Order: sequence, then structure tokens, then C-alpha cells
Amino acid sequence: MNTIELAQGKVRLLDQTLLPASQVILEIDDYRGVIEAVQSLRVRGAPALGVAAACAIVLGAQTISATEPDQFLRELQAIADEVVAARPTAVNMAWAARRMMAAARQAGDVASIKETLTSEAVRLQTEDVETNRRLGALGAPLIPQEATVLTHCNAGRLATVGYGTALGVIRAARDQGKAVRVVATETRPLLQGARLTTWELLQDGFDVTLITDSMAGSFLASGKIDCVVVGADRIAMNGDVANKIGTYPIAVVATENGVPFYVAAPFSTVDPELATGDGIPIEERRPEEITRWGDVQTAPEGVRVANPAFDVTPHRYVSAIVTDRGVARAPYTASLRAQAGQG
Amino acid sequence: MNTIELAQGKVRLLDQTLLPASQVILEIDDYRGVIEAVQSLRVRGAPALGVAAACAIVLGAQTISATEPDQFLRELQAIADEVVAARPTAVNMAWAARRMMAAARQAGDVASIKETLTSEAVRLQTEDVETNRRLGALGAPLIPQEATVLTHCNAGRLATVGYGTALGVIRAARDQGKAVRVVATETRPLLQGARLTTWELLQDGFDVTLITDSMAGSFLASGKIDCVVVGADRIAMNGDVANKIGTYPIAVVATENGVPFYVAAPFSTVDPELATGDGIPIEERRPEEITRWGDVQTAPEGVRVANPAFDVTPHRYVSAIVTDRGVARAPYTASLRAQAGQG
Repeated sequence: MNTIELAQGKVRLLDQTLLPASQVILEIDDYRGVIEAVQSLRVRGAPALGVAAACAIVLGAQTISATEPDQFLRELQAIADEVVAARPTAVNMAWAARRMMAAARQAGDVASIKETLTSEAVRLQTEDVETNRRLGALGAPLIPQEATVLTHCNAGRLATVGYGTALGVIRAARDQGKAVRVVATETRPLLQGARLTTWELLQDGFDVTLITDSMAGSFLASGKIDCVVVGADRIAMNGDVANKIGTYPIAVVATENGVPFYVAAPFSTVDPELATGDGIPIEERRPEEITRWGDVQTAPEGVRVANPAFDVTPHRYVSAIVTDRGVARAPYTASLRAQAGQG
Repeated sequence: MNTIELAQGKVRLLDQTLLPASQVILEIDDYRGVIEAVQSLRVRGAPALGVAAACAIVLGAQTISATEPDQFLRELQAIADEVVAARPTAVNMAWAARRMMAAARQAGDVASIKETLTSEAVRLQTEDVETNRRLGALGAPLIPQEATVLTHCNAGRLATVGYGTALGVIRAARDQGKAVRVVATETRPLLQGARLTTWELLQDGFDVTLITDSMAGSFLASGKIDCVVVGADRIAMNGDVANKIGTYPIAVVATENGVPFYVAAPFSTVDPELATGDGIPIEERRPEEITRWGDVQTAPEGVRVANPAFDVTPHRYVSAIVTDRGVARAPYTASLRAQAGQG
């Protein structure tokens, strides 16, 4: 199934907090339930979050009793704002909400708005897989014929509706007949690499090796890694990339060792309003993600904790940014602007 | 109490695998029990491992029935070799075993050898604290008057008999009236930073913030960190440093951001027989350290895992190496050779 989808007026999603131990499909019929699922990372990954936002807005529209279109749209905008605020870093939620609101404003009466919202959400969902397949095909030529690729966090099928972004490039490379092995970082604190990336790659029969985040450095220095491919949560116009915490040091060490560092993301992850990465808001999450493991306290009671979920990799460490519109290279402001012109 | 000590013919040590939840003192009267404690990291940290090796050799001597000194020493050497093989990377075990064997060879009959072994082990234990206080005082001037220091793993009291190496420098800086805050990485897979470093620093009233290993990069880029101080498990004569996995990327990112990267270790951690870090054996530990959390499987069954416990930081990323003999700077082959000459 898809990672997230709209089905019979409900949002169906695979609860990723329970992987790899169990595969549980949640059916959510309330937009606040979708917000909860987003905040607790039952669904995560920038592209999947875009679709989650669209789905939440469809459910939210059902709760509005206004019958006059202007009033309906005002209340819908408030719901869209609430949905977008669920997680601050990934720009895809705001992008999807803008698409949904624009579609709604084109419709006529309230019944027509609701219908339009549903079809726009389904369109976003379908487009996501197509987008990923396209960016995968565009990125695959970057991967050598025999390659060991390092990836961080999960930018796979589970971070999207299907196929994946970074892992989409890897899948496409294999489809082009390349022999691709993957080294996956576990990705603390929530282990998206250990729990999700290795799981989906093993399901697809890939050769995958799990390491801790702290091992990426020596792997990059060892000559064993041919390139790095990661996803992104927000990309500034100058090519600065916000992605899962730990991406930045991987990029620095890759550059230091002459290993290409590639970012793969749908063009919707590019934020046209941000000139540089300095303005990207970084979500700070709960200390307990680091100090506890299930019921076990693993750090002294009361210790101060910092838990930023993302970091920003300056563009000078980025060898290329693969989107569904092409492979952007430095200078990124020009190459991303050229891609924007294709929209 | 000391982290490890010889007391009434037994080895007493704080079981560090149970921290911070419980403080359990183990009394071990069998050298193979000490080897088990070393291998399961009940006691860890290069300087503490040196003392553990000495203590194990004292206990091992009790098991030898030979009454003729030469035969006794041959059997003792076999035990010393077995002890040293318990963990391959930290050179301090071999260093301590050499000291113990040299002392034993100076003694006369078997009774005198046994007595000499005990007093040499106690001497090593006492010297360790003195050494750390000396290196702390030598290193403290490197710390700014108001400083936030990043450290990785645990190179503290718990990694030594007492006081610590990297944390010894931090303690000495505070004793010199400096305002020192600490940022401690959790240090996957076994969380020596989260469980041990924050625990001992909080006990001493330090301001300490816990982060995941993957956050060190963005902290170093943020301007919030004034310097890095870490310990070492083995230092080659050219200044290449083996230390806990994840040290190398911290050193690279620190250098990239102009943040000084200091190594603090007793001179016994310098391996005079190694010209460069290429020859340092890197211990590979069990996959379950990464794929399981207590009883919970956190990665798919059967996934391939790499688990090197250490990495090697090339000397070009090391701003200074603080030992109990002075502050060595590049070119290290000359400065460490000069320190060796003081021995």
C-alpha cells in the first residue's frame, strides 16, 4: 500500500512508530488525528507530510458548518494554518496547503469546494509517486555502475507516498542495471534509519548495512563509500539544505574526503521565499526522545537536553540537488531558478 | 570511591553498564572475571583499562601453582597476554601489562613476585589519579575563561581511576576559576556520554547539556562551542588518535569551523611503536549493541551491521595533545618524541 492515502473519506497510514516490529494501518477520520500522527511521527518525511497536510485539510473541511463559500474558505484557511504548524521545518506541508487552498478558491459552492479538495488531495498523492520516479530516473546517472551509497535517516518509500526520493534514486539506479549497496545510518534519536530504511530496503532485496550515525565519518574516510544520497526537508534558493539532524557533518566529512554528496527531493521542497538556509526554522523536539528508551531512563534525571530535529547543510558541501525537474548544480541560485521557471 | 581498585586481594569496580539507574560495586576475585568485566564494558576507558589489566594480572598470579620463578613468570606472561587481548584498541592494557611483567622480573622468589605485583598494581592505580591531575592542570590553560566545551564519550573519572582525562582538563579549568559549560554527546551505541559523562558532571555540579552524536556538527557550526576536548585509546607517534567511534567526524567539523580540537590522555596512551594511526587495530563489537535495546529489537531481524568501536583521527585535525608530560603540538612526531625523552 501507499505510506499514506485518502480512502473512503478517511486517511489511511502505516504507523511508522511501530516498525519494524509490527505493521499497523491507522484509519483516521479527524484532521486533528492527522496532526497528532504528524507530530508523533506516525507519518514523517517531507513529501509524505505534504500529502498528510492535504489529507488533513480534506478531513478538516468536513468539520466546517458554514454554507457560504467565503466564510467556508476563511474557516478552511484557519484549519490549513493549524495543520501546517504541526511541524515547522518541512516546507512541503505549507506547499501542499497552498495548493489545496488555491484549488478550493477556484471552486464554486461549498459542495464543490469539498469535492475539489478531495480530488486535489488525490492528485497530490498520485503526483508524489510520479515525481519520485521522475527524480529517481534523473538522479540514477549520478550513481556509479558498482556503488556503495551512504544514506541518512529515511528518504524512502516510507517518507513519501511511494518509491522514495534518496532511495528512489537508488531504486532507479538498480533498475538501470547498476549494482548498488547501501550503508544506512541508524539516525538518532528516533532510529528512522535502523527501523525504516533498512526495513524497506531489505523488503526490496537490497544489500544494506546498518551503522550508527557516528560511524558515517570513518566509513567516508575509508574509501568504501562512493557517494552520499539524502533527502531534504527544505531547500533554500542558494542550495542550503535542511535535512535530518546529522546530515551536515556527513556532508562536511564527505566533502573532506572527495565523496560526492547528493540531495534528492521533489521540487516542492525548494522554498522560493528563502534566499539562504539561515531562515529555515529548526524544530526542537522533546528531551525524552533522547533521555528515555521506552520505559527505561538512559540519562540522569533532570539533565538538560538539546534536541533539534534538523540541521542545515551549506550549499558548498552539496555536489548536486536532484529534483523531479532536473539535476541542479552550483551556483544553485541560478540552477534552482531555472528549475522554478519550468513550473 | 575509585572507579577500579585492588582491595583485600579482590578487584572492586563500579559496574558502569548499570549507570545511571543503579550504582553497583562488583567484587571480583578471578582474573577471568576481570576480563569479562572489561569485555562487557563494566569497566572501560583506556586509563581504567590499564589498571584493570594490572589488577587482573595480580588475580591471575594467584592461580599459578608453579614455585620456580622462571616457570611462574612464563605462566604469568601467558595470563598477561590473555588479559591484554581482552580489548585490542586501547594500548594502556599492554602498557600496564609490560610494567607489571617488568616489575615481576625484578623480584626474586614467587612470594616476592606476588607481593611485587600487588604493589605495582597499587602504584599504577595511584599514579593514574596523579597523572590525570597533572594533565588536567597542563591542559586547563587551553580552556577560555568562559567556555562551552564539547566532549564525546566518557573520558572522565569513570574512564580512569579518578579525576579523568578530558573531563580532568575541564575540572582543572573550573578549579582555576573558569566558567566551563559542557556539551556531551550521548555516544552510541552504548551511551557512555548519556549514561556516564552527564552523570559524573552533574554529580560535580557542572552545567551539562546532552545531545545525540549527530548534533555535534550543527553545534560546532553554530559558534556555541569554544573547543572540543576528548580522550584517546591509542595515539601514534605522528599524532594520529584512536578514540571512540564518532571522534573523527567531530574533529573534521571542528577544524572546518575553526574550533580547536584537543585530545587529553596520559602519556601511556602514546604507542611508541606506531609511527602512524594506520596500524591501530579497531575493535569490532557485537551487532546486537546496535540492533537491540534491552529486549526490544529496533532493526529488522538479520540486517547486516558494522560496529567498529573506534575511529582514527588524523593528526592534521588535532590542535594539541595534552598528556601528563606537556602539551604536544604539530609536528607531533617531534613533540611526542620530546615527551618520550622525559620518561
